[in-house]
Amino acid sequence: FDSKLPRTGTTIFTQMSELAAKHQAINLSQGFPDFDGPSELLNRVDHYIQQGANQYAPMTGVPTLRQAIQSKLSRCYNHQADVDTDITVTSGATEALFATISAFVQQGDEVIVFDPAYDSYDPAIRLNGGIPVHIALLPPSFAIDWQTVANAVTEKTKIIIVNSPHNPTGTVFSSNDLDALYELAEQHDLLVLSDEVYEHIVFEGAEHQSVLRHKALAKRSVVVSSFGKTYHTTGWKIGYCVAPAALMAEVRKVHQYLTFSSSTPMQLALADYLAAHPEHDEILPSFYQQKRDFFNKAMSSSRFTFTPSPGTYFQLMDYSAIQDIPDSEFALWLIETAGVAAIPISVFYQTPPEDLRLVRFCFAKQTSTLSDAAKQLITL
Amino acid sequence: FDSKLPRTGTTIFTQMSELAAKHQAINLSQGFPDFDGPSELLNRVDHYIQQGANQYAPMTGVPTLRQAIQSKLSRCYNHQADVDTDITVTSGATEALFATISAFVQQGDEVIVFDPAYDSYDPAIRLNGGIPVHIALLPPSFAIDWQTVANAVTEKTKIIIVNSPHNPTGTVFSSNDLDALYELAEQHDLLVLSDEVYEHIVFEGAEHQSVLRHKALAKRSVVVSSFGKTYHTTGWKIGYCVAPAALMAEVRKVHQYLTFSSSTPMQLALADYLAAHPEHDEILPSFYQQKRDFFNKAMSSSRFTFTPSPGTYFQLMDYSAIQDIPDSEFALWLIETAGVAAIPISVFYQTPPEDLRLVRFCFAKQTSTLSDAAKQLITL
Ligand SMILES: CSCCC(=O)C(=O)O
Ligand SMILES: CSCCC(=O)C(=O)O
Repeated sequence: FDSKLPRTGTTIFTQMSELAAKHQAINLSQGFPDFDGPSELLNRVDHYIQQGANQYAPMTGVPTLRQAIQSKLSRCYNHQADVDTDITVTSGATEALFATISAFVQQGDEVIVFDPAYDSYDPAIRLNGGIPVHIALLPPSFAIDWQTVANAVTEKTKIIIVNSPHNPTGTVFSSNDLDALYELAEQHDLLVLSDEVYEHIVFEGAEHQSVLRHKALAKRSVVVSSFGKTYHTTGWKIGYCVAPAALMAEVRKVHQYLTFSSSTPMQLALADYLAAHPEHDEILPSFYQQKRDFFNKAMSSSRFTFTPSPGTYFQLMDYSAIQDIPDSEFALWLIETAGVAAIPISVFYQTPPEDLRLVRFCFAKQTSTLSDAAKQLITL
Repeated sequence: FDSKLPRTGTTIFTQMSELAAKHQAINLSQGFPDFDGPSELLNRVDHYIQQGANQYAPMTGVPTLRQAIQSKLSRCYNHQADVDTDITVTSGATEALFATISAFVQQGDEVIVFDPAYDSYDPAIRLNGGIPVHIALLPPSFAIDWQTVANAVTEKTKIIIVNSPHNPTGTVFSSNDLDALYELAEQHDLLVLSDEVYEHIVFEGAEHQSVLRHKALAKRSVVVSSFGKTYHTTGWKIGYCVAPAALMAEVRKVHQYLTFSSSTPMQLALADYLAAHPEHDEILPSFYQQKRDFFNKAMSSSRFTFTPSPGTYFQLMDYSAIQDIPDSEFALWLIETAGVAAIPISVFYQTPPEDLRLVRFCFAKQTSTLSDAAKQLITL
């Protein structure tokens, strides 16, 4: 059998986490917290399991969770979603991304993707017969030049995938980016797939520029988010997407055959916690900014150079003063030499810029983990 | 935007469960138990949640669960799978089916599907640019005529999807079916996708004819199964697939971008339960045969006619003595008149046989539920 993804290997997150385990390194590679979510949330799962909520959830998600999402969208973005038609709970944000791409990408359709790009976008597009059109964003700013994007649009362009706060660079959209995105999408009748899984992790008091804030843009967008990132439960695999009814109807046609539904007791637990604690996502920026600042301060005496990440729980660091080797090599060297695992970012480019000397550290870790890692990294 | 699935509506399972709720009918439509799995299993989820097992599971599944699956395959089918390369845990059997189809079906590839077919196969094939070739199995036996299948194979045939025990008819493969399938697959170099989610629900002491029993056939097969069906936890959405390493490598390339991983604490709980209670799946046939026999006995004074289902937790019943209307109409009438929800089976055919007068009842229910339903059904 011919492989449909001949150039695809095992995702970098699996590779690095496996290497970290093998070398007993501190794992700042794959993005997940090494601490738990609120105990009230954790305890609630068993409550529902004991109540017998162990059979299929509704395909679109349990109603109370969709209601909680609706309230949150209204509170955070002044977006009025219809609980019945505009919100679908998925098995992680990854499933929502895959379902959306599968629902809309047809043979020969072009999809604009900004590199460095989360590694699921490109294979999902290819599996559906689409053509990923990669636009490279370059260090140090990784800013989008919207004129370059406009030039990349063709008759065949169907979707543009955006991601703010951006993984792996930590950059965030400005309201100007939203306006430029809207203009482009409107002019060329594009669908926008907006990956906003780090929506609640933006720093220095900035507001997350959700596509949902822009009413006209929201009309042609599918917005994807994640409870794992916000509630420190990446292993529960519950995410969701939001879109106008007509778009969502197509996403649901795929979702119902892709996973059908997601874990019932975990959805119910999240629903209760969201309803009881709307403040959780409001506290998250300062919670993670403290971690970022702690890690960066501990790293200030290292030979890594960096500017503080504006969003996400990732910090890029430039290692060119330490080693003049490609980042994938450096990441291996780092595990072996310093016992710390990081993610090389060239793997997120179709054509990596030459001389890229950046790795990504995840700071969603306990202070002690960050401190231990920094202690080893400053010796380099 | 053009729909990629213009003729696809909401899955019949969602439609009927929603109608059942609306009419407060007894829901024997969508297949799920109205009782819980073993409390030792249920309690174990909280154990792992409290231990902090709330972050991403390994992409392939937690090692202890893959080990438990390996033991079970060895015990039940004398199949020796490699834990590292041949087994992948998925977000339900549905994801395993979708991932396998996405991994192998290319533009223009034909895939043989037997009708009545589980409703995810056809759209999954179409979304990948494939052409479903439907072969209708006819009542009363729904037997496969392998010569007809051979005649349907063309140069473009890539995959044949089989499902035994069969949903919705309850029929099961004989070892002759396995041999015929092997001969056909070998001769035309076909990949076999074997949906065996009801593997442990076969009656009258019959052995489940898993594709894995046939060593040469297993070499070209992806076998899909489900913990939801076996452990009464359909809402946990944990399934798995088994295949030779080279095939599994392609399935994993898709799985890692489709959901990446499944609920960590639930995987760990299942792993412990499987290791401690290998007898669970051995008790399942008599457990469900009792339910089948109880329901069928209660229905013996009704005007429905039937032969006992050889497998699955579904029983087809012929209603032609009650109403001479199409089954979708009858199912609506049944909810309104008798307050019982069933699944019409013509929706699982591309071209339903004329005068099909069968509906599917799920007997994975408490005795009291089955008894209440039968009481209402015998009045018709
Ligand atoms: C699904 S594993 C990847 C986790 C993540 O989003 C990241 O590390 O970037
Ligand atoms: C995923 S909902 C369908 C459950 C089921 O397998 C059935 O009722 O046939």
